[in-house]
Amino acid sequence: MSSLQDPEPLQKLVDALKRLPGVGVRTARRMAYHMLQHDRQGAFDLSAALDAALSNLRHCALCNSFSVLEICEICSSPKRDSTLLCVVETPADQNTIESSHGYSGLYYVLMGRLAPLEGIGPNQLQFEQLLSRALNGTVKEVILATNFTAEGETTAHYLSDLLESKGLKVTRLARGVPAGSELEYVDAGTIAWALMERR
Amino acid sequence: MSSLQDPEPLQKLVDALKRLPGVGVRTARRMAYHMLQHDRQGAFDLSAALDAALSNLRHCALCNSFSVLEICEICSSPKRDSTLLCVVETPADQNTIESSHGYSGLYYVLMGRLAPLEGIGPNQLQFEQLLSRALNGTVKEVILATNFTAEGETTAHYLSDLLESKGLKVTRLARGVPAGSELEYVDAGTIAWALMERR
Repeated sequence: MSSLQDPEPLQKLVDALKRLPGVGVRTARRMAYHMLQHDRQGAFDLSAALDAALSNLRHCALCNSFSVLEICEICSSPKRDSTLLCVVETPADQNTIESSHGYSGLYYVLMGRLAPLEGIGPNQLQFEQLLSRALNGTVKEVILATNFTAEGETTAHYLSDLLESKGLKVTRLARGVPAGSELEYVDAGTIAWALMERR
Repeated sequence: MSSLQDPEPLQKLVDALKRLPGVGVRTARRMAYHMLQHDRQGAFDLSAALDAALSNLRHCALCNSFSVLEICEICSSPKRDSTLLCVVETPADQNTIESSHGYSGLYYVLMGRLAPLEGIGPNQLQFEQLLSRALNGTVKEVILATNFTAEGETTAHYLSDLLESKGLKVTRLARGVPAGSELEYVDAGTIAWALMERR
């Protein structure tokens, strides 16, 4: 008696779901069963959304974020301050900064961060494109808003050296105690930074 | 200045991914970025696999598992012992039992388990179909192989009462110490069961 094989369409669906980040074979199976058994409309929608995203989304030629237009809405807005360029890792980070309503300049989205262990170096992130964007003659200050993780800090450090060597003013988001927090619950590393950068 | 909106195709993709079990908005975003940025082929494959699974997979008319045929390979095999019917929760559980090479009977796949808190009762699991399958005159013994979780046990208990009331012989997979395990590392509940069911 041979070991049971799933029907081919189910196997292929599980294999395709397994390629999503953080999804192993058990999770992929659970997702496949769920969609086929309880949410066929969801499966139709996901397939259609994938097709639409693949055919309609491109990278904005200026900020590198996802966009349906050659130049995205923010980059083409006359209301934005074109002397400021904020560098973020992902479109989600860009959303976060926009929702703070504290920034009116333009963006550059790296679509990743330096991660040598994953083989992501300056070439993979196409730093030349950022460089030519920052050196367009209008940008006066580049604000580095990569994450405050080891990889984000490394990326900020590398970019800071690169951009300053071209004579640009480079700044980094301030580190310190988060708004609304009680000191008792803030981690020691943050307190140490907040003390060092007190003003 | 209004808060930034993701481009529509990206929003729709994130919404569709969010409907997968265990996927929240952050995970959905990470999946979408990953596919669009690093694995477009994977996105194409996933879309195609979803379409193929939706159009080609059905439930086997006898065992209720996923199948491309009206009657699946196992149910139509003349080598299987048609007097034994093993009830499992999912096709994955069926695979596990098949890979033990210890069973040559037929299956019935519930595609779920009783979970009153999620609104899954006997009607949602279509127990009538199982009942008519088990009462076809050939089946002599029904082996309940639902999971040994609270919900799986509840399901086994309910099915045991239902099937025995129709005069069928009903058995349950044995509980005990897993093969190859050292007693020191086996949980107390399992030891208690193994003592009670010693032979």
